[in-house]
Amino acid sequence: MLERTLDKPLYQQLADALSNDIRSGIYPVGHKVPSVRKMSGLRGVSISTVSQAYGWLEDQGWLLARPQSGYYVRSSHAGMDQVNVIRMPVSSPEAIPSAVTKSELISDVLDQLNHPGRINLGATIPHASLMPQRQLQQHIQKVSRYQLSEVLAYQFSPGHIGLRQQLAIRMRDASVFCDADDIVISHGCVDALTLCLRASTHPGDLIAVESPCYYGFLQLAELLGLKVLEIPTDPATGVSLEALELALSQWPIKLLLLTARFSNPHGAVMPVARQKQLVAMARRYDIDLLEDDIYGELSHLTQSASHKHGSGQVTAITGLDGACTALKAWDTDGRVMYCSSFSKTLSAGLRIGWCIPGRHFDGVVRQQIFTTFSACSLSQETIHSYLQQGHYDRHLRKLRQTISSNRVRFQNALQQFFPPQTLISQPLGGYCLWIQLPDGVSSGLLFHLAREQSISIVPGSLFSNSERFEQYLRLNIARPWDDTVIQALETLGRLVTQLMQKV
Amino acid sequence: MLERTLDKPLYQQLADALSNDIRSGIYPVGHKVPSVRKMSGLRGVSISTVSQAYGWLEDQGWLLARPQSGYYVRSSHAGMDQVNVIRMPVSSPEAIPSAVTKSELISDVLDQLNHPGRINLGATIPHASLMPQRQLQQHIQKVSRYQLSEVLAYQFSPGHIGLRQQLAIRMRDASVFCDADDIVISHGCVDALTLCLRASTHPGDLIAVESPCYYGFLQLAELLGLKVLEIPTDPATGVSLEALELALSQWPIKLLLLTARFSNPHGAVMPVARQKQLVAMARRYDIDLLEDDIYGELSHLTQSASHKHGSGQVTAITGLDGACTALKAWDTDGRVMYCSSFSKTLSAGLRIGWCIPGRHFDGVVRQQIFTTFSACSLSQETIHSYLQQGHYDRHLRKLRQTISSNRVRFQNALQQFFPPQTLISQPLGGYCLWIQLPDGVSSGLLFHLAREQSISIVPGSLFSNSERFEQYLRLNIARPWDDTVIQALETLGRLVTQLMQKV
Repeated sequence: MLERTLDKPLYQQLADALSNDIRSGIYPVGHKVPSVRKMSGLRGVSISTVSQAYGWLEDQGWLLARPQSGYYVRSSHAGMDQVNVIRMPVSSPEAIPSAVTKSELISDVLDQLNHPGRINLGATIPHASLMPQRQLQQHIQKVSRYQLSEVLAYQFSPGHIGLRQQLAIRMRDASVFCDADDIVISHGCVDALTLCLRASTHPGDLIAVESPCYYGFLQLAELLGLKVLEIPTDPATGVSLEALELALSQWPIKLLLLTARFSNPHGAVMPVARQKQLVAMARRYDIDLLEDDIYGELSHLTQSASHKHGSGQVTAITGLDGACTALKAWDTDGRVMYCSSFSKTLSAGLRIGWCIPGRHFDGVVRQQIFTTFSACSLSQETIHSYLQQGHYDRHLRKLRQTISSNRVRFQNALQQFFPPQTLISQPLGGYCLWIQLPDGVSSGLLFHLAREQSISIVPGSLFSNSERFEQYLRLNIARPWDDTVIQALETLGRLVTQLMQKV
Repeated sequence: MLERTLDKPLYQQLADALSNDIRSGIYPVGHKVPSVRKMSGLRGVSISTVSQAYGWLEDQGWLLARPQSGYYVRSSHAGMDQVNVIRMPVSSPEAIPSAVTKSELISDVLDQLNHPGRINLGATIPHASLMPQRQLQQHIQKVSRYQLSEVLAYQFSPGHIGLRQQLAIRMRDASVFCDADDIVISHGCVDALTLCLRASTHPGDLIAVESPCYYGFLQLAELLGLKVLEIPTDPATGVSLEALELALSQWPIKLLLLTARFSNPHGAVMPVARQKQLVAMARRYDIDLLEDDIYGELSHLTQSASHKHGSGQVTAITGLDGACTALKAWDTDGRVMYCSSFSKTLSAGLRIGWCIPGRHFDGVVRQQIFTTFSACSLSQETIHSYLQQGHYDRHLRKLRQTISSNRVRFQNALQQFFPPQTLISQPLGGYCLWIQLPDGVSSGLLFHLAREQSISIVPGSLFSNSERFEQYLRLNIARPWDDTVIQALETLGRLVTQLMQKV
């Protein structure tokens, strides 16, 4: 029972108490909190007070509301997360759109993948053992046997009709309702992003991105001759709408490129209410929104529900499949361009992605016809055949469970091996952990020292055109948890400690 | 024996006599003419006179010199071909770089391929029956069985090392000597062209193209924000160096995009001496050359040489494999960027091309990493495995023989069915016939009438930003010769006759 005091409203007191419970682990990250009705009974307050408290906790990044499901713990240290929030003074000189550099460093990161001896904690490429390789093999064999002509001939833009139909159905999991005719199959997600950007912008245009954001966005923007404005981003709830609105009022921004679900590197999810606000704001300022949803199916928010079958054996671990909505779900006039791919969930080598370009559909198709022509037919047929068999959701559930467990193991090991001043992100999905090193420790330096120990990481400076993330690093958790990775994390921790002592 | 007269030098008299013989069919197109020594004996003139005459005939487009092989008939009507030469006044107002249009018409052409009932005489997509589909099937099955991990994982830019090694060896057939490390594997030829153009130009730059040229070049240039200047082009010997030099002296041209072997739509081959001149000119004016060699392996210049084996059976028809040199062969400082693909010779659906970007290598790799990332791994492994087995050259010989026979059959049928005022090109390779219709007949109108009869063609207007090729059309000859195609050509001829009567 809550004590009633005068200095704070009742809902705020409840919210404070609940955030303490979350911080202390009573309600662990990713787990459901009691329903509004149940909490009302537990704490002896009205249902509307609980609703208000939950709403406040959601706004602050502690909880995540999921339609038809309830509230889930999104972060155990929303206070700590605030440390990560970059309060970028949008109107100050530093915010003037800048030229992009750092591509050599990215080549260095990628080059490490060419050395099989290296432990890849850098690029977020899922380890082969997490992918359904044998099943994909069967489908390659099958389509090359029975659909040989289709496999070897062009699949003209916008791509394989059967695959587009399946994708249209799958998009409903993200609350996106579209037809096969709205979808373009692309040569991976980055091709989809390129086609959308080229169809909706011109060289010299200014676009906005999250800060920090996936380094590929910054490089792509530079290659397309676009200027970039970085918008402050909350590690839990995504891009700051307040900062964005200020920027929109001051700069001729054409488009915002963002990830609304499981962002890279934060792992943030933009709450539904904010997603709706963002789409409304885009309409008000007449800008496009380009959504990269490549991690959209990789939620960590799993429920460990054991289903007992007739045999009495536990046979499945059920996740909440893609229950967070994509930003595209709230698009009413085609200004949200949605992009994704199978590179993080099935195979990167098959190079199959897709986009839903909305009002830029014709432009994207035209871009495709004259620059990449079409995606690989053999890959399109293979993935179409694989999806048709209906094993993809089961694979995703298993994959989510693995990644979600990995995240906890990585976090625990980091707490054990890294100096206590280290801060660790609480991603809600995806393959990234974002780590703030102790003051004065440079992840750029750590990158080089780690490489000498055959460990690959990504230094934080790549995630912005500024130097403000020099103290951060990103780790890839999409690999088996074994002694090798434990030793690698121990080595990294030792290197960080050494660097800290030199400060 | 030649009569000696005073008004013309002896070599010129010999050349005139030989061109008459070629025109009358004594020396047919694609066949070797007597060696210099033999001709010297036949005509009773000195070897140096014959050499001079052959040189003149080469310059005029009658003959083609091939190293270590001799002289071949390139055209039976070099005089007629001149009709096709567009004398574009480079410095006149029409030559001012213009905006590109016509993309909807191209979509129309491509859309016809989605209707299986249509007879494709339009897009130069080889018919499935001409491709080694069963062999490719075997290799898909093989690599997915034995190299599963490689097939499903990324093959990082610049691509599969084994495939690049094989390509480096194959490039020697075009007299290009390069290493595997000079090659980038791309997602088809148009991706290669896009990467090269993006690495070597900026939006707003001016590039030069042949006129007429492949419509994809014009569309791509527009999409990349490039301005285009069309340079007069000879149907036999390719782009006019004289006109190009004039243009270079007047406009800030950054790059010339061209096809030196078996151009589209002309089927022209630039003689070696002119190739060398062009590269020297590019060096003098410091411009880049971008060579699209997608038809490079599809020469029509075949020798029917029957090899008798032990069994006494004829087992092979030997072609002169790619004996024409690529422009890249004469590159000394990396300014020639070479692009090609397997889409015309193996499979378009596998989407594998390559480029040799010379001094723009690093730029191309960077463009690739951040826009298409890499080519499909499954396709790279499949083609690598296929090439390794060594059946590609045999397939190419058969394919060249088929296409070369097709060309003659198409030409004969066109002469039979079309009005006598029709002029037909004499391509030396590739899949295109370029046809000049009688005066006043519009190929745009013919395109629509033909579509109603389920026949697809490409109207000439697409091959230029101007309207000067409205009277031309391009036919695809890469399909089986059968009653269907004969009927289609007859129908086209009837339609042309009807259109002519309305003029």
